[in-house]
Amino acid sequence: MSHGFVSRMREVLDSTSVLTGADIDERYYQDLAGNVVAKPLAVVRPGTTEQVSRLLCLCNQAKVPVTTQGGLTGLVRGGLPNTNEIVLSMERMNAVEEVNTSAGVAVAQSGALLQRIQERVEQEDHIFPLDLGARGSCTIGGNISTNAGGNRVIRYGMTRDLILGLEVVTANGTVLHGLRRYIKNNTGIDLKQLFVGSEGILGVITRAALRIFPAPSERRVTLCALHSFEQVSSFLGMARRRLGGELTAFEVMWNEYYRLTIERVSGVVRPLPTHHSFYVLIEASANNAERIQADLEELLEGAKDENVVLDATISTSKASAAAMWGIRDSTLELSRTFPYASRIGFDVSLPIDRMNEYVNAIGARTKAIDVRAFAIVFGHVGDGNLHLELHHEHTPDRREDFEKLVYNITGEFGGSISAEHGIGILKRPYLKISRTQEEIETMRTIKRALDPNNILNPGRIFTL
Amino acid sequence: MSHGFVSRMREVLDSTSVLTGADIDERYYQDLAGNVVAKPLAVVRPGTTEQVSRLLCLCNQAKVPVTTQGGLTGLVRGGLPNTNEIVLSMERMNAVEEVNTSAGVAVAQSGALLQRIQERVEQEDHIFPLDLGARGSCTIGGNISTNAGGNRVIRYGMTRDLILGLEVVTANGTVLHGLRRYIKNNTGIDLKQLFVGSEGILGVITRAALRIFPAPSERRVTLCALHSFEQVSSFLGMARRRLGGELTAFEVMWNEYYRLTIERVSGVVRPLPTHHSFYVLIEASANNAERIQADLEELLEGAKDENVVLDATISTSKASAAAMWGIRDSTLELSRTFPYASRIGFDVSLPIDRMNEYVNAIGARTKAIDVRAFAIVFGHVGDGNLHLELHHEHTPDRREDFEKLVYNITGEFGGSISAEHGIGILKRPYLKISRTQEEIETMRTIKRALDPNNILNPGRIFTL
Repeated sequence: MSHGFVSRMREVLDSTSVLTGADIDERYYQDLAGNVVAKPLAVVRPGTTEQVSRLLCLCNQAKVPVTTQGGLTGLVRGGLPNTNEIVLSMERMNAVEEVNTSAGVAVAQSGALLQRIQERVEQEDHIFPLDLGARGSCTIGGNISTNAGGNRVIRYGMTRDLILGLEVVTANGTVLHGLRRYIKNNTGIDLKQLFVGSEGILGVITRAALRIFPAPSERRVTLCALHSFEQVSSFLGMARRRLGGELTAFEVMWNEYYRLTIERVSGVVRPLPTHHSFYVLIEASANNAERIQADLEELLEGAKDENVVLDATISTSKASAAAMWGIRDSTLELSRTFPYASRIGFDVSLPIDRMNEYVNAIGARTKAIDVRAFAIVFGHVGDGNLHLELHHEHTPDRREDFEKLVYNITGEFGGSISAEHGIGILKRPYLKISRTQEEIETMRTIKRALDPNNILNPGRIFTL
Repeated sequence: MSHGFVSRMREVLDSTSVLTGADIDERYYQDLAGNVVAKPLAVVRPGTTEQVSRLLCLCNQAKVPVTTQGGLTGLVRGGLPNTNEIVLSMERMNAVEEVNTSAGVAVAQSGALLQRIQERVEQEDHIFPLDLGARGSCTIGGNISTNAGGNRVIRYGMTRDLILGLEVVTANGTVLHGLRRYIKNNTGIDLKQLFVGSEGILGVITRAALRIFPAPSERRVTLCALHSFEQVSSFLGMARRRLGGELTAFEVMWNEYYRLTIERVSGVVRPLPTHHSFYVLIEASANNAERIQADLEELLEGAKDENVVLDATISTSKASAAAMWGIRDSTLELSRTFPYASRIGFDVSLPIDRMNEYVNAIGARTKAIDVRAFAIVFGHVGDGNLHLELHHEHTPDRREDFEKLVYNITGEFGGSISAEHGIGILKRPYLKISRTQEEIETMRTIKRALDPNNILNPGRIFTL
């Protein structure tokens, strides 16, 4: 990329939108752990869709590759620039443009923070149900590009299920004005589906029409202790039947997660003793507090009668509910109490009936590499999704051995190597475990058709 | 297509799978109204995915176009063969192969009838929630290819939302083994989304992994009378808040639909008088009968107090619930009481806050063509979807004038010209009202990339 190209970018956008040299802050090329990559040659911060279009048109003609950045909270090295890529930051396109409760839709620019959208929608007594720990720093554009999941998938689905329409700029600068606002629209290939979850390799999302829902006025949380995974699985079935549409979260923590969080993370409460094998956090939401209370009590009574649940506590206030969620939401804090080099995170999907066997296999087989290795496991079991943090005492160069082992076991159990975090660059070597060669080749065909010069997030998911 | 080609098809499949000449029954080239098109040169009925793959490989090499057929219940002339196309009928691949309640999944071949899947899943005390009037003759492959909607979208979403994985054969015979069984799987471009709703132009679906849910044991239906659309809209908000996840249908019938069905369709009951402007049918489902009853009673009491609902009746038995659904499900029967030439069906999506104005505009402006024209309107208002049957007394050659007018009004109101029926060939001239030129061009790019010889359902949705 030449100086001439920078000048041309400044011409088609405006000079303040294009940062170079010393004006480029470290945050544009630094990951969550503070590691930096090579400084990009330019950071472009468009303020309008038209500017994104002009920029991509220029980059496409000059074959200059672009990395699109949202909140940089991803975990697979999708958003950090590779050498020779310019950064396209969506941070200036951050407006929540409209909230229409009668139509059940909110419209936001893709750089809007998730939490900002949540709060704006809540002002209208509605919710935008997507929710994850990074809510305060991730952007909706990043959430859509990675098809984020999070805590309420069991009730409201993945990000994909919450998208009514998208405005997208494709590689050659074409603007797809697809910001439609209705659920049903069977008029040809549903193009927006291509851009959800494809990690920015097919287009740059500039705006989204999002589904919003009336806010349930009441919410209760219960934390339960169980002694086996079979009980967890039975309890999920009981909760689904008893709570139906009231069930908004069913989160499971293996003993290590719960115990170590209580022991190591400051400010966390201890609602139940730490010696049980499994802990389940259930959230129920509806408009009738007495009914939720009665439902949870009946659920727990039934589960205790059948020896499915050993011990349980129900929230009595917003504060006690928040305290229980605080344990489940301390994943990052717990992680940081261990040295960076000794931990490896995984995010997998599995059929629920194989989860326990899977976790046991990981435990046993990682010990062959490091006898002191152990896994901290938790996740959205109701969605078939486990998060697993493997801890070892080896030098970082054994990292790849552990990764290979865990992903191979995931493949043996018919699982997905990425439930909600995506592939990016870090998981690329393992994509073939979860997708067949024919599927990956078909993905390449689509990439080549929509981005023939390979300028959008090149090398993410797969290489061409 | 030569005789040599037929022989080659018989070689790669088997002789009984390839029908020609007098062996081709009329049902393969006849629409729902009994109209026939030109007899296809061959009807191929593969029994395995491998056979579909071999067939498409052959057709692709010889550039012989193929029409894939499910239950032929579509309304846009998508499934009838054009001249020179062979028919690929999925009728022999009709097995429900697996129902796994603990994993929440059923696996079916694409030629399986929707009703057969529903009934098989119900044996396990679960439901596959997709439901529409054609359940007894439509196939799941057709439902997926058209992203069918139906009566329970408000609770369970469109067909797209019910698909966990697909096995698909692409134009050159490549088999995409994507029959995965988990909700979360962010491993690259989600290819299955391309095949849902694209009307068979990108691939032939051979198998599907479907989401199933525990069956709610109790169900109540209420039919209500209202005097304005504003009341209908308020009532929807009240029902959503009061019933939450219990709300499984919110169907609206304009006076003409309700009155004429009672008057003209035999065997239909009359739960409420026929002089009201609007009728709403609500279905609530859960496991607790008393609670549903109490919820509906409170909802109706509140709605009556606020003068939103004028009159209402709640089902007291499965039979009375079925009788109320019978009115809403008599669309085809009502339609058939009018001569074919005088009626034109529409299926549109609109923002709910513009629906009434839209229906009034259709009423007023169609009278400029035929002063006696009138519209029968009903639909899934909770999903923004209206069905509209326009009746006129003109000769069939004015049909196009009415279509143009209604679709243009739909465009003026920012609506979609096809909510759930798709585009096929009949709605192709109007696609540009709901999709921009850039979107249609992008669809063409994808079609060319995946089916360069244009052999799969050519001319459906758009021409190349």
